[in-house]
Amino acid sequence: MTLPQPVLHGSTTLLDALRRAPIFADCSDTSLTAIVEQAHTETAAKGKILFLNGDEATSFFYVTQGWVKLFRETLDGTQAIVDILPQGSIFGETAIFGDGVYPYSVEAVEDCKLLRIPLSALKRQIEEEPKLAFGMLKSMARHRRQQDQELEHRTLQSAPQRIGCFLLRLLPANANQNIVLNLPYDKSLLAARLGMQPETFSRALGKLKDETGIKIVGARVEIADITQLSHFACSACSSHFPCSDH
Amino acid sequence: MTLPQPVLHGSTTLLDALRRAPIFADCSDTSLTAIVEQAHTETAAKGKILFLNGDEATSFFYVTQGWVKLFRETLDGTQAIVDILPQGSIFGETAIFGDGVYPYSVEAVEDCKLLRIPLSALKRQIEEEPKLAFGMLKSMARHRRQQDQELEHRTLQSAPQRIGCFLLRLLPANANQNIVLNLPYDKSLLAARLGMQPETFSRALGKLKDETGIKIVGARVEIADITQLSHFACSACSSHFPCSDH
Repeated sequence: MTLPQPVLHGSTTLLDALRRAPIFADCSDTSLTAIVEQAHTETAAKGKILFLNGDEATSFFYVTQGWVKLFRETLDGTQAIVDILPQGSIFGETAIFGDGVYPYSVEAVEDCKLLRIPLSALKRQIEEEPKLAFGMLKSMARHRRQQDQELEHRTLQSAPQRIGCFLLRLLPANANQNIVLNLPYDKSLLAARLGMQPETFSRALGKLKDETGIKIVGARVEIADITQLSHFACSACSSHFPCSDH
Repeated sequence: MTLPQPVLHGSTTLLDALRRAPIFADCSDTSLTAIVEQAHTETAAKGKILFLNGDEATSFFYVTQGWVKLFRETLDGTQAIVDILPQGSIFGETAIFGDGVYPYSVEAVEDCKLLRIPLSALKRQIEEEPKLAFGMLKSMARHRRQQDQELEHRTLQSAPQRIGCFLLRLLPANANQNIVLNLPYDKSLLAARLGMQPETFSRALGKLKDETGIKIVGARVEIADITQLSHFACSACSSHFPCSDH
């Protein structure tokens, strides 16, 4: 078990890091310092469960390093991925607006470094600083648009188009041609993130390569021409490439 | 075209109605009165488009009577249903937390009565009353859990299970057996709301009837035994029946 380590009070680096999370973007230094002062660092080895769906919620977390998986399980143990979050993300924070329990389980996908922050500290600052509340509302509205789009994709896009869409979102802004990138996590996790069975994912990946000329070997993806990929993936989507929301 | 009618200032009935919307549940009379004073009533005939995805957002709406459909369209005109909202719902309000445009289009599914309220009035009260911001955060966190569940259902539930789940959510609390209810809107809209093609929906409905013994004739649904239906629909879900979130 990892014992939480207290964070240096008012550390500038931590303030800067936290401010990169959308909910804290407009938050004052005073409020953010008050929150950081309550934070403890901890590590989580790959596979560690940070909390379970339904556990009493006392803290929220900031991912300093690594990836985490948010998921829920049915009675027979089938897993549904809620989200997969990279460093710079926050999770567990919405529990204070619900019934005080976490709405999903969280597992470290690889070795992670985290900040654990009491929800009481966040709640106090929301009550004291309207800007923080407004920042959270902005962040949640953005997440809502993303979820609406995800639901739309599940209805209108084919499996190869959904993989293509995922790849397009990994591209840096202004990327154009001869792009090489690495998949952020392994293919079985990627399939689950996209709500596909492994065999569906595998077939869809083959079709995507045939249709768009991209190459995928292991985790390495080569995209010679983005236009062909975006034309294929975005034709069954109500947004235009590049997506303004991502 | 319907000309907006000004609402009687501080109308108690309107205050009571608006307070039933989750975002206003904890809002003070003072704030809510300030918002209601800016409201105008209007009507929308069946099929009327209230605004389009991408339109500049100046107002949000409260549904006094009827149903509205929130949707987005791809370039080739294929429609994805974002949501279908009954009376007592609010829509268009999240535009103030984004880039100032509506994130979806809205159409009246049947003849509707609405309140049109300037977003500026809402924004002013959010800034002045932290309780209102907190109420909105609660409401958005609840919506987020519902969307997470909807995404889970698209992955784990079969089409017949998804229809069964939809029916279970229509039931009054403490319903048990020999229930008769009416579908809230027509089957083609219901299919689209559940993200199914009409022919998929039709086949799934047949299978649901065979598996659970329910009867559906036209809009009338007869459920002799809820246990059989919930056992069938909820076996591929991470929540337990009855759903606490709905």
